[in-house]
Amino acid sequence: MKDVVTACPVEDVMRVLRGRWRSLLLYYLVNGPKRFSDLQRDLPGISQRMLTLDLRELEAEGLVARTVYPEAPPRVEYALTDDGERILGLLNALGDHWADMRARRKAMAA
Amino acid sequence: MKDVVTACPVEDVMRVLRGRWRSLLLYYLVNGPKRFSDLQRDLPGISQRMLTLDLRELEAEGLVARTVYPEAPPRVEYALTDDGERILGLLNALGDHWADMRARRKAMAA
Repeated sequence: MKDVVTACPVEDVMRVLRGRWRSLLLYYLVNGPKRFSDLQRDLPGISQRMLTLDLRELEAEGLVARTVYPEAPPRVEYALTDDGERILGLLNALGDHWADMRARRKAMAA
Repeated sequence: MKDVVTACPVEDVMRVLRGRWRSLLLYYLVNGPKRFSDLQRDLPGISQRMLTLDLRELEAEGLVARTVYPEAPPRVEYALTDDGERILGLLNALGDHWADMRARRKAMAA
């Protein structure tokens, strides 16, 4: 039987954004470049290893850019790419509708 | 330390849509109501148990409506709610941008 689960872009973007932290990482980069330690402070529940892996995947997928400044010691910053900003915008639209929906359902249940 | 991971609507909607099948289930309901067996045919890789659980969660979250027709035997159909359609529309916008991005990155790498 033909496997109808094709490489559907919705499935693919959901795969990349899966897990607890990735969409939040995009959110916390919305106001400009940050260092690894800044993101650890923003997301106190994330482990160093998970933050490293998630940032690496978001970078590999073109949503986050990593810049190394040749200082002593080298300074490393992470920032949203244009595509990262665009995807975050679409995620926020999804979140906004979800919040509206929730409020409506809560009001109807009250 | 304050846990900054609040009940953020983006995180919440991503939680509901997590996993391999849920966004696909919304996608396969886009053309109107379907029966359980129709969805099993659409998604040959999904187990009966997983389809049952995912449909139940999507229903509980207000994205899918389940209608039982009092026939013998009873006929049960699943359909997108208005909110389900809206969320699917936003997911498709996310998927479209993702597909464009992918095509651009592929062209640049060629």
